Amino acid sequence: MSESKRKVHVHEVFMRDGLQNEAVFVPTDEKARMVDALSRTGLTKIEVTSFTSASAIPALRDADALMQRIERRPGVVYAALVLNLRGAQRALDARADELNLVVSASETHNLANTRMTRRQSRHALREVCRLAGEHAKVALSIGTAFGCPMEGAVLFDDVLDIADEFVGSGVAGITLCDTTGMADPAQVRKACAGLAGRWPGVALTLHLHDTRGMGLANALAGLEAGITRFDASLGGLGGCPFAPGASGNICTEDLVHMLEAVGCDTGVDLQALIDCAAELPGIVGHEIRGQVWRAGSADRRYPRPADFEQIVERAHVRESMQAAVGS
Amino acid sequence: MSESKRKVHVHEVFMRDGLQNEAVFVPTDEKARMVDALSRTGLTKIEVTSFTSASAIPALRDADALMQRIERRPGVVYAALVLNLRGAQRALDARADELNLVVSASETHNLANTRMTRRQSRHALREVCRLAGEHAKVALSIGTAFGCPMEGAVLFDDVLDIADEFVGSGVAGITLCDTTGMADPAQVRKACAGLAGRWPGVALTLHLHDTRGMGLANALAGLEAGITRFDASLGGLGGCPFAPGASGNICTEDLVHMLEAVGCDTGVDLQALIDCAAELPGIVGHEIRGQVWRAGSADRRYPRPADFEQIVERAHVRESMQAAVGS
Repeated sequence: MSESKRKVHVHEVFMRDGLQNEAVFVPTDEKARMVDALSRTGLTKIEVTSFTSASAIPALRDADALMQRIERRPGVVYAALVLNLRGAQRALDARADELNLVVSASETHNLANTRMTRRQSRHALREVCRLAGEHAKVALSIGTAFGCPMEGAVLFDDVLDIADEFVGSGVAGITLCDTTGMADPAQVRKACAGLAGRWPGVALTLHLHDTRGMGLANALAGLEAGITRFDASLGGLGGCPFAPGASGNICTEDLVHMLEAVGCDTGVDLQALIDCAAELPGIVGHEIRGQVWRAGSADRRYPRPADFEQIVERAHVRESMQAAVGS
Repeated sequence: MSESKRKVHVHEVFMRDGLQNEAVFVPTDEKARMVDALSRTGLTKIEVTSFTSASAIPALRDADALMQRIERRPGVVYAALVLNLRGAQRALDARADELNLVVSASETHNLANTRMTRRQSRHALREVCRLAGEHAKVALSIGTAFGCPMEGAVLFDDVLDIADEFVGSGVAGITLCDTTGMADPAQVRKACAGLAGRWPGVALTLHLHDTRGMGLANALAGLEAGITRFDASLGGLGGCPFAPGASGNICTEDLVHMLEAVGCDTGVDLQALIDCAAELPGIVGHEIRGQVWRAGSADRRYPRPADFEQIVERAHVRESMQAAVGS
């Protein structure tokens, strides 16, 4: 509200990162309704789906149809994930506003995730950049940027090397992904602080998972190191098929709640977001994570106990008796 | 390991703050076994129970017996919560190392929680300080220090006023409690930064709840503002009866994991702690929160996919074909 409030952008990835990990196929109309509801909360970007092979990610096999059915709300960027030229062409045909390209900093994770070597991915994604041209913005997500669940430590220089190349290819954004929640706040702070000014004009985003409970602490560390864009998933859904047990993305409503609490302006209507989250268990068929949709925001007031008047009366009686004894 | 590592103390409050909110009565021997297991993890303080009325908190009605059955491991402080002189006498008889006194900064919460006005609580607790004398250390926990679920905002000056009084009465420690998880990192940082040097020689502890998912972010903010002592509860159990839906304390194993990750030395054996947490669902009869006991620590390595060799081979075949085309 005040002019000094820092603007922070929250990007909703539940529709892609969340749903791709679900066993159920959510019907296309239901997905479209969800995207439309999310786009009315004030979120500035929604990753709607991914244009990958139907056999690899059956939950998102309706990407083309879904993109046709969603409302296009002005001010909202409707993004889609792509791994290669074929996916990019589909995404462009479906009028995605932004193509989110993915490559992993870890060779092992990139092979497991995309069936391509990093070299092949980079080659394919350079072609995507050329194809997208003026038709759509392109952003690059660098997976396992803070560690690989199979290889372990990842050289941050490898992350920078990939990012530098694609900034050179004209991407509008770079997203550093903590794919399986290995990052800690010290690591995030150090990584992000070192990036200040490195890619002028390029939107830098953090994509964090809450696998070890450090998700919001990592977001806070990133925020303090100058990051103003975060991916997050409604209800904290998401995961990574190559790290079973690794739980979801940081939870959108919890993130928005924290950002607003520390004085940032997300532009998001928290209650509208909570209303969306509350629908999730019915949609995905299981309990979801996230705290704020359950507990309400920190300014929620609870009633006093039913017998409060009696408690007060008795306490006051005791107090007068003690006072009488003391006098 | 390195000499520069900052020593941080984690106090386990599951036995008290966790169990008091459970519907089941955990048998005394089971409780003693749990305390003994926790005391072998390297934790420096365990709040074992509370000496309150059996009707108010039936889950902890075996406080006296429990204190007799636990092992007394050198270097571990076995603390007990007390609200008044009678509880204090019982705790001293049971050889508690430290009495943890509780008063809320909010009048409404203090009345609801203790059936006393703050004035009455302070009077009773001053008597406890005198009684304890040289027999046991005394620490004061100030509830709702960051907000009251019934009243709303709490004046931090009220918190300071209570703390100042009891520091004057000789307490060894002051604990600021975010009883229902209303604090945010900016608030915690500001509060803690203002306390540096205020009470020399008094151990200052943060007691945080994760009600809105900000628990570890708040711990991080406190750590950065100079706090080196934290209460936490195994499995993130705990809560507050006056704020239904408000979930538990910050999770001990997740906190230890984060603290170690950012370079602190907690002295705690994380795996031993995880082993304790893994027993909890069987003990309390329901799923618990906490991420690390499920996901493992960030250095956990996962196997590559079963078909990884094939993936690599196919990728390399494609690469040589592309190279051949390109040449």
